[in-house]
Amino acid sequence: MKKKGSRIERELVNLLWDLQCPAIRVPSSGAATKRPLPDIIAGNGRRYMAIEVKGRKEFPIYLSDDEVNALKEFSASFGAMPFVGFRLDYKEWRFIDVEDLKPTKKGNFKIDEDLMYEKSIDVFELVGVSRQKKLHFLKDPE
Amino acid sequence: MKKKGSRIERELVNLLWDLQCPAIRVPSSGAATKRPLPDIIAGNGRRYMAIEVKGRKEFPIYLSDDEVNALKEFSASFGAMPFVGFRLDYKEWRFIDVEDLKPTKKGNFKIDEDLMYEKSIDVFELVGVSRQKKLHFLKDPE
Repeated sequence: MKKKGSRIERELVNLLWDLQCPAIRVPSSGAATKRPLPDIIAGNGRRYMAIEVKGRKEFPIYLSDDEVNALKEFSASFGAMPFVGFRLDYKEWRFIDVEDLKPTKKGNFKIDEDLMYEKSIDVFELVGVSRQKKLHFLKDPE
Repeated sequence: MKKKGSRIERELVNLLWDLQCPAIRVPSSGAATKRPLPDIIAGNGRRYMAIEVKGRKEFPIYLSDDEVNALKEFSASFGAMPFVGFRLDYKEWRFIDVEDLKPTKKGNFKIDEDLMYEKSIDVFELVGVSRQKKLHFLKDPE
């Protein structure tokens, strides 16, 4: 689980760099204090994003209340847009604003298929790449 | 040397968090590619900073051409102000804009005592804390 998390985080970091959006995996293991930290921080001079990463086999994807609060707190303080970045096996990356997550009866949060269709965006929308430039990336990736 | 670098980077990260400026040590060891990366990224909603960290016994402090170029490149792309953060043993942290570094005859860059007095700023100026708030932090640190 830990290793899978690292792998999928690295995958997203690489994708963001390819879209000219420098991204960093945030180290957490060495932290002495319990700071609210996202998995990834990214920026491209126009926007800054704090991303909690979820790779899963299927919906729904759950997030704990603590995860959501930490993401909100960090983002507000650092000055970043708070996103959950998720990818199901063999599917594309999708991103959802943390404010759009569905609360569960147990006080946590989830992403299901309906929410994905209603609210999520793709990685081009995330980094603010225009439709024209998106075609450029898709046809002629660097 | 490696360990000392980590320790002094953590020291600066802790100081920035204390000033309500979330900061992250950028992991470099795991990077498969040769990306331009600073030692620390920090932000507080008003400004974003990419920082190359130098802890030394005495002046001058040298930076290689590659270090300086990587810091400039990352900062321009991510959208951050490029700083060298330095601290001599038993002295306070000082910060200098990478554009203010002195070129050496060998094509590298340096910080000497004159440059520190002329151009460097302290950590409160770095994060944009006002004089009044600075007194608050100094008198009553959280």
